[in-house]
Amino acid sequence: MYFGSDNAAAACPEVIEAVLAANTGVQGAYDGDTLTQRLDGVFSDFFGRECRVFVVGSGTAANCLGLAAMVPPWGAIVCSREAHIQVDEAGAPAFFSGGASLVLAEATAARLTVEGVRAAVAWMRGDVHQVQPAALSITQATEYGCVYTPGEVAALGDEAKRRGWRLHLDGARFANALVHLGCAPGDITWRAGVDVMSFGFIKNGGMSAEAIVVFDPALAQTLPHRKKRAGQMPSKGRYAAAQLLAMIETGAWARNARAANEAASRIGAAAGDRLLHPVQANEVFVRASPEDSAALRAKGFEFYDWAAGEIRLVTAWDTPEAHVQALAAALAVL
Amino acid sequence: MYFGSDNAAAACPEVIEAVLAANTGVQGAYDGDTLTQRLDGVFSDFFGRECRVFVVGSGTAANCLGLAAMVPPWGAIVCSREAHIQVDEAGAPAFFSGGASLVLAEATAARLTVEGVRAAVAWMRGDVHQVQPAALSITQATEYGCVYTPGEVAALGDEAKRRGWRLHLDGARFANALVHLGCAPGDITWRAGVDVMSFGFIKNGGMSAEAIVVFDPALAQTLPHRKKRAGQMPSKGRYAAAQLLAMIETGAWARNARAANEAASRIGAAAGDRLLHPVQANEVFVRASPEDSAALRAKGFEFYDWAAGEIRLVTAWDTPEAHVQALAAALAVL
Amino acid sequence: MYFGSDNAAAACPEVIEAVLAANTGVQGAYDGDTLTQRLDGVFSDFFGRECRVFVVGSGTAANCLGLAAMVPPWGAIVCSREAHIQVDEAGAPAFFSGGASLVLAEATAARLTVEGVRAAVAWMRGDVHQVQPAALSITQATEYGCVYTPGEVAALGDEAKRRGWRLHLDGARFANALVHLGCAPGDITWRAGVDVMSFGFIKNGGMSAEAIVVFDPALAQTLPHRKKRAGQMPSKGRYAAAQLLAMIETGAWARNARAANEAASRIGAAAGDRLLHPVQANEVFVRASPEDSAALRAKGFEFYDWAAGEIRLVTAWDTPEAHVQALAAALAVL
Amino acid sequence: MYFGSDNAAAACPEVIEAVLAANTGVQGAYDGDTLTQRLDGVFSDFFGRECRVFVVGSGTAANCLGLAAMVPPWGAIVCSREAHIQVDEAGAPAFFSGGASLVLAEATAARLTVEGVRAAVAWMRGDVHQVQPAALSITQATEYGCVYTPGEVAALGDEAKRRGWRLHLDGARFANALVHLGCAPGDITWRAGVDVMSFGFIKNGGMSAEAIVVFDPALAQTLPHRKKRAGQMPSKGRYAAAQLLAMIETGAWARNARAANEAASRIGAAAGDRLLHPVQANEVFVRASPEDSAALRAKGFEFYDWAAGEIRLVTAWDTPEAHVQALAAALAVL
Repeated sequence: MYFGSDNAAAACPEVIEAVLAANTGVQGAYDGDTLTQRLDGVFSDFFGRECRVFVVGSGTAANCLGLAAMVPPWGAIVCSREAHIQVDEAGAPAFFSGGASLVLAEATAARLTVEGVRAAVAWMRGDVHQVQPAALSITQATEYGCVYTPGEVAALGDEAKRRGWRLHLDGARFANALVHLGCAPGDITWRAGVDVMSFGFIKNGGMSAEAIVVFDPALAQTLPHRKKRAGQMPSKGRYAAAQLLAMIETGAWARNARAANEAASRIGAAAGDRLLHPVQANEVFVRASPEDSAALRAKGFEFYDWAAGEIRLVTAWDTPEAHVQALAAALAVL
Repeated sequence: MYFGSDNAAAACPEVIEAVLAANTGVQGAYDGDTLTQRLDGVFSDFFGRECRVFVVGSGTAANCLGLAAMVPPWGAIVCSREAHIQVDEAGAPAFFSGGASLVLAEATAARLTVEGVRAAVAWMRGDVHQVQPAALSITQATEYGCVYTPGEVAALGDEAKRRGWRLHLDGARFANALVHLGCAPGDITWRAGVDVMSFGFIKNGGMSAEAIVVFDPALAQTLPHRKKRAGQMPSKGRYAAAQLLAMIETGAWARNARAANEAASRIGAAAGDRLLHPVQANEVFVRASPEDSAALRAKGFEFYDWAAGEIRLVTAWDTPEAHVQALAAALAVL
Repeated sequence: MYFGSDNAAAACPEVIEAVLAANTGVQGAYDGDTLTQRLDGVFSDFFGRECRVFVVGSGTAANCLGLAAMVPPWGAIVCSREAHIQVDEAGAPAFFSGGASLVLAEATAARLTVEGVRAAVAWMRGDVHQVQPAALSITQATEYGCVYTPGEVAALGDEAKRRGWRLHLDGARFANALVHLGCAPGDITWRAGVDVMSFGFIKNGGMSAEAIVVFDPALAQTLPHRKKRAGQMPSKGRYAAAQLLAMIETGAWARNARAANEAASRIGAAAGDRLLHPVQANEVFVRASPEDSAALRAKGFEFYDWAAGEIRLVTAWDTPEAHVQALAAALAVL
Repeated sequence: MYFGSDNAAAACPEVIEAVLAANTGVQGAYDGDTLTQRLDGVFSDFFGRECRVFVVGSGTAANCLGLAAMVPPWGAIVCSREAHIQVDEAGAPAFFSGGASLVLAEATAARLTVEGVRAAVAWMRGDVHQVQPAALSITQATEYGCVYTPGEVAALGDEAKRRGWRLHLDGARFANALVHLGCAPGDITWRAGVDVMSFGFIKNGGMSAEAIVVFDPALAQTLPHRKKRAGQMPSKGRYAAAQLLAMIETGAWARNARAANEAASRIGAAAGDRLLHPVQANEVFVRASPEDSAALRAKGFEFYDWAAGEIRLVTAWDTPEAHVQALAAALAVL
């Protein structure tokens, strides 16, 4: 019974069917296929605003190409200490941007606040001797499975704009946040000041394609060149585009995210006061002693230890109901 | 009737079936899946020597990550003026390596010779004021569809070794070269001095995965880090690995390459003395006036104009027999 | 009466005379001059161990070329939150290294401890998803004018070695530290585990040249290439080398540092319990309200405000005795 | 009797005196000194147009920081095959720009023509798969001591502008070209379309400072950041600025260049039909067999062998008259 990572789940049927359906006949190479060419339109409809979409092969590529389009090599990106770009991308922000730094802000449940951002840059003088903050990056849902409300995003967007920074959104679990909030996609993106986002599909039932969505057309200009020279322009673009179109057009994005969120909610409820953060997406962080962890593992559950005395339980679009029930029961009797 | 690019072809059935088969149950994320873990063994058997395999999402990533593992930021890569890394990778060699340069050698049909390599570096002094050649990169089959024999590769390998350079092979159409030669895979790779190669699958019937094959274990050490920070480590690695395993284990690599080569051969034969280069893989370069080109297009053929008065005709693993016959007939009556 | 920065001081007579003396006749360009060629020998004598010396034009270049020789592009450098490479080098560590990150440790008076280093990397897992710590960088004297003892450096050197990291020393004020300690140069460098250091001369009475000193010959191999391609190989190398030779061979390094340290000591003594850190080099950090600062400025003193309620007072090799007395008197009556 | 390189000459008296004169009292660090602050004005007067000036420590830094301000990481710089940035800067164009490539044009005596530039880029398609030419770089005087007329520069400037490229000038020997032409400085720079230039002083009697002159204010915006993070912002800026001011304000630039040019002219005249290129600056390229070279060396002349059967003879501002006479005599009797 696996609760280790949503990256370990299979792809959902709509994605598989779309890949199969794309596998007929000749299609223009690179972005010359008819599927890739539909992406801008489909995502513009989804977000309620004209946007540009660039398909890439990983969340790291999505985040760091997007950031590179915003931040000069001597720039800095403000993010939470727990941000994926800081903890789990092996220096990719500097690689893609040509050297930009991260400035780490303290956050609760990896959810930044305007105050946290201000404190993080309070030491900076803005002169030429220092790196120059040029973007704020937030993760939605956060690395601790928490969700920024539209107002919270907008407050950060205002702060960024006031300082002349761009706002970047790592949406590896954007769909989970969106179904949790029930708002319009634009409410937590462009209307709230987001300039560029990574729209994650792989964790949510995709196979191998993620999207960079660019709301400010000026920021889209360098991305075709950046993508190509980073080896992120697939030669048979149809298979990647097909996955994204299927997720959006069939509504699988929402159904999958809802399923994962509901499973997580039930696990969170069972965890009771062991719960470390509110469950607002598909991750559950639970206080657990080594003995607790061992007991759960002995019952057949797989998951990651997090900080000392904490475990992380992640659900996916296809986590079996029986596994959720079993885990909930096991947590209840810990 | 499409002869534009082998990148426009669909994926072959074995690849699709393997992707479907991989789509069951939980698999460890990143390279933690059972398919990825089989890659080293399967490719070591294929090449008759222990090697390390790294899956990436594009030929550009395969070439340039491989080169980056060999060449310091102040290094230079000697290649033919027509090399894909020079003409069609948007500066990716410098991006992945942190700044390495290309030194261009003159070649016939993009096939380098020892003499061409020597001439290309004759101006270089080796002192600290100049970039330092550190690798020779050849393309097999070449960008003009020609094939290096084992002896030709070995001669270049000897020259490279004598100079303290590494030998890199861009094998975007390696399978086509291999079936043309009928030799063992090792004969044109590690036995001939190749240190690192890109083994191309996408043009040959794959979907979205290419392989970097490393024959010198010392060169493999940095690649996991380079791959990760370049966003070239797919989170659901199973789908990429499945494609490569299917191509190698079912023999589809050879069947597909043979089909494409045979189609190209027949087209080349029909081209008669218009043929610009020997047809040894799946590309046919033909002398054609603008009127000739227009006449072919009027008959429904799609292809690229190359240099002035030249057209390129590319076959794929699934080019319909009827299209090949039609093109051969049309060329014969030009 | 200026206490703003030791970079605002003139060059000392020995340096000026050496530059004048170097200005005769023909000398080989780049590092072909007879002065540059004496550097390795003179510094090897100074340190009591064979070392390699590379002249560069700024402390930033010295630090970051040295670090780049130790740390791969996906590597990380552990340093204090107040380190010059973090606060005042505009992202140069990433620029010179091709992308390396800084991991910030908490320190007292910018002086790292083994415990602080351990805490700073406690979150790191060492897997391929994260940047890889490869060097520890300490500043001697620290950015707060404090000095590591030989034992303290050695403890950090042991910790670094145990973890497979290199030890880097930013010695922008190395001479000040050395005269404070009265130990042998080797005691706080190679004997204590330092692999590469920046030996700062400019703040200590030089004009325009700093030295990278490399104690591990393996780390010197890439530096000539790195220096050249960074535009840090002066074409008339004699003028830079002359400065370093003069400082070492005449003993000006020690006399200058001692003068600056003594001036700072007297100012520190006058500051009484306003003193924020022990005065062990040529910087004095003093608690001062905005009114205090204004009062000092009204008396003609120039200095920088530091953190809120703090001011920094820096002495140089040539700070006039009368200015020191005046400042001491002014502090005493605050 | 030394004719190896103008980098081997000493600094001229005006430069030395200016450095001495700068060595008094306190001056703001970095670019806060009164000398640095005068640079923009003095050079704007010199060029007859408002410009921005950035001091750096080497010609490589001047060229490559200037180019980096014009060319994106995926960009290309068109230059002659013999250009210093191609032959002698160890990959610095890629280092400073974050990966830009050089596209080599054929030239006579390293002097580009519009036709040569067009031929060099004729293979380029402008699509995203290729590097994007963004600047044309010319060297004045060229690496073979030849000079572009105002009309020739303007023709290249027009071609660049027409294509949307910037025009860069490597003026390592700009003063020599200027005195040869006798035109206004603006005639071969901004009036002819030059956007950014390196104004070389070191070969012409300076000590350690070169200038980047920026005629388009938009291109100056990133340079302070680029300079700082490249370690090219000297902490005691006064000594570098003093050198440039002295050269311009005393007219030493012209006197020195004229002296070197005249010496070269006389040597060139003596070389007769052995002369390989017209002598328009301070370099003389002469046909010479190995026996000829040996004979000259036996008489005490030092110089570099160039291509096979060619030698290079370089004069400096201070080449002794007697040495020039001796060399002229020796060449006449070869």
